Amino acid sequence: MTIAHSHSTSQIHTYVEPAIRVLLDRLDSGNRLVAGYQMGYWNADGSPAVCQGKGLRPALALLSAQATGAEPDAGVPAAAAVELTHNFSLLHDDVMDGDTERRHRPTAWTVFGVSSAILAGDALIGLAYEALAEVPGGGAAVRRLGLDVRALIRGQAADLAFEHRDDVTLDECLAMAGDKTAALLSGSCALGALLCGGPAALVDGLSRFGLHLGLAFQLVDDLLGIWGDPRRTGKPVGSDLRARKRTIPVVRAVTGGGRAGRTLAELYRSPAPLADDDVARATALIEATGAREWTRQRAARETERARAELAALDLPEHVRRELADITTFITGRDH
Amino acid sequence: MTIAHSHSTSQIHTYVEPAIRVLLDRLDSGNRLVAGYQMGYWNADGSPAVCQGKGLRPALALLSAQATGAEPDAGVPAAAAVELTHNFSLLHDDVMDGDTERRHRPTAWTVFGVSSAILAGDALIGLAYEALAEVPGGGAAVRRLGLDVRALIRGQAADLAFEHRDDVTLDECLAMAGDKTAALLSGSCALGALLCGGPAALVDGLSRFGLHLGLAFQLVDDLLGIWGDPRRTGKPVGSDLRARKRTIPVVRAVTGGGRAGRTLAELYRSPAPLADDDVARATALIEATGAREWTRQRAARETERARAELAALDLPEHVRRELADITTFITGRDH
Repeated sequence: MTIAHSHSTSQIHTYVEPAIRVLLDRLDSGNRLVAGYQMGYWNADGSPAVCQGKGLRPALALLSAQATGAEPDAGVPAAAAVELTHNFSLLHDDVMDGDTERRHRPTAWTVFGVSSAILAGDALIGLAYEALAEVPGGGAAVRRLGLDVRALIRGQAADLAFEHRDDVTLDECLAMAGDKTAALLSGSCALGALLCGGPAALVDGLSRFGLHLGLAFQLVDDLLGIWGDPRRTGKPVGSDLRARKRTIPVVRAVTGGGRAGRTLAELYRSPAPLADDDVARATALIEATGAREWTRQRAARETERARAELAALDLPEHVRRELADITTFITGRDH
Repeated sequence: MTIAHSHSTSQIHTYVEPAIRVLLDRLDSGNRLVAGYQMGYWNADGSPAVCQGKGLRPALALLSAQATGAEPDAGVPAAAAVELTHNFSLLHDDVMDGDTERRHRPTAWTVFGVSSAILAGDALIGLAYEALAEVPGGGAAVRRLGLDVRALIRGQAADLAFEHRDDVTLDECLAMAGDKTAALLSGSCALGALLCGGPAALVDGLSRFGLHLGLAFQLVDDLLGIWGDPRRTGKPVGSDLRARKRTIPVVRAVTGGGRAGRTLAELYRSPAPLADDDVARATALIEATGAREWTRQRAARETERARAELAALDLPEHVRRELADITTFITGRDH
C-alpha cells in the first residue's frame, strides 16, 4: 500500500517509521495502543501489523527537505509531523463520519470506543507539533503546520455541513477539497524545505506544487470512492454514495443541469442512507451527466499544473524525478 | 468568576483576552463561533457574553513571565496558550463525559453538536501551539506544552477507565489528578518564565510550585463537586456522585476500610447513574468515613508545599505576593 516503485518508500521505513515509533513511546500505554493501531503499526492486541497508508505525505516531506540539497534524514521531523497529523484527522473524522472501515480494518473508534479515538487523535496532533518544535529554528514549520491543521478542520466542518445541504456549489466543493486534502499535501511539500531553511521561492513553489497535487489526489479519490474496487481501496463499495456524501463528481452532476442530474438530486434528498439499488442508480446517473469524465479531466488539469510548478523549480534532478513519479502515481492509482 | 482581588485579573482583560480573540479570528466562522462560546466570549448566537472561567491559568502564566523580571505582556503568548489548552480539554472532555452544563451554561456539544465540539477543540489546541511557536525561541515552550497536553490526555483516559473499575487505589486517583489538573497548572507556572528565557532553577521551582498548587486545586474541586453550592460552582448538585465519578474523597472513603466505605462501594457498584436519594446517602457515607476531612487536610498539605516552593524562589516581591494570593484563593474558594 506504499507509494509504488519509489525510492522514498524505503526511506520511510528507514527513517520516518522509527522516528514516529519513538514519538509514540512518549504516550501512556492505552493511548499508545490506539495511536499505533491507527498508524498501522500493530493490531488491536498489540501484535505487529502490516496495513499502513500509502506513505504519500512523509515521502513528499522527505523530498521537500532534499529539494534544499539536504540529506533525506533532515526531513524526518517534517515527515513524522505530517503523517501524525494525517492520522490525527483520520481518527477524529472517522468518529464524526461514523465510518467503520479504513485500510481493510475496523476503524479505531469501533475497536476502542469513541473517547479513546478522540484522545488518541489529540495525542497524535500534539506529537506532530512537538516533532517540529524540537528542531532548532522549527518555529516557522510549527506555524505552517498550524495553518494546514486549521484548513483540515475547516474542510471537515464544511464536509459535515454539506450533508445537510442540497445547494452545495461546485466552487464550495472544490474549496472543501482544497482544505481537507490539498492543504496538508501542500504542507508536506513545504515543511521539509522550511525546516531545512530553504529559500522562500523554493518553499512557496513546492507549496503550490503540493496544492495542485492534492487537488488531483482528491479528485481521483472521489472517482475511486464511486468506481474503485473495494478490494483495492479498502473501503466498502459505494460508501461515499451510500452516506450521501456530496463529493466533487456528485456536486458536478447535480449542478451541471440536465435530467440525470435532477434525478440524482432527488435521490440525494432522502435523509436515510442510500440502499444498494439506489447506489447503483446514483452511480449510473453521475456517469450519464458526464461528471465522471469532467472529474477525470479536472484531475488531469491539476496534475498538469503541478507538473508546471515542478518544472519551474530549481531542484536536484533526482528530487524532481521522484516528485514527478509521485505525481504520475497519484493520477494513475487504483487505491 | 475571575480570581478574586488580584492585580492579574485586569491584566488578563488588558493583555490576554485581546490576544486570544486575535488568535480565534484565524478560524473559519463556524469553528470560531463554537470556540468563542467555549471561551465564554459570546453566546451561541454570537452576542457578547460574560461567563468566563476563573482565569487562573493565564494569571499564573503572566506572573511566571514577571518572575524573570519581564513585563507582564511578555507572558501573553504563554497565558493564551494555557487558556486555549484548558478550553480544548474542556470541549473534548465534556463530549466524552456527556456533561451537559459548565459555567452555568449548556456545554458546547449540547448546543452545536458533538462533531463541532470535537473540531473546535482541535482548533484551540492548534492555536495554543502556534501562540508559543510564534515567539522567537519558543521551541522549549512548545515542548513543555506538549508534555502537559500528554498528561491531560493520560489523565482523562485514566478518569474514563476508573468509571469501569471498582478497585481504583488512592495512589492511582492522585496520579490521575496530577495528570488531569496539576500538569497544566504546573505548565502555566513554568511557561511564562520559559518563554522569557528564565534560569532553569526558576522554571523548575515555579513548575513544582504549580504542581502542588494544582493538586490542592483538584482536591478542593473534588470537595466542591460533592459539597459545593451549585449556584456558585455552576455544576448541578452532586453531579460527580450522580455520574459515579471516582474522585479523591470517594476513593479515600472506599479504600479507607470501615463499614461506611463498604456501603459506599456497594452503592457505586450499580452501573446506572445514582438517583437523588442515593446521592444524598453517598454524600453522608463519605463524610462518615472521614474522607471529607482527609481531603481537606491533604489540600492543606499541598498548599503548604506550594508555599514552601514559593518561599525558596528568587522572585520580585510583587510576583511572590500575587502567587501567594492565588494560593490562598484556591484553597478558600467556593466555586
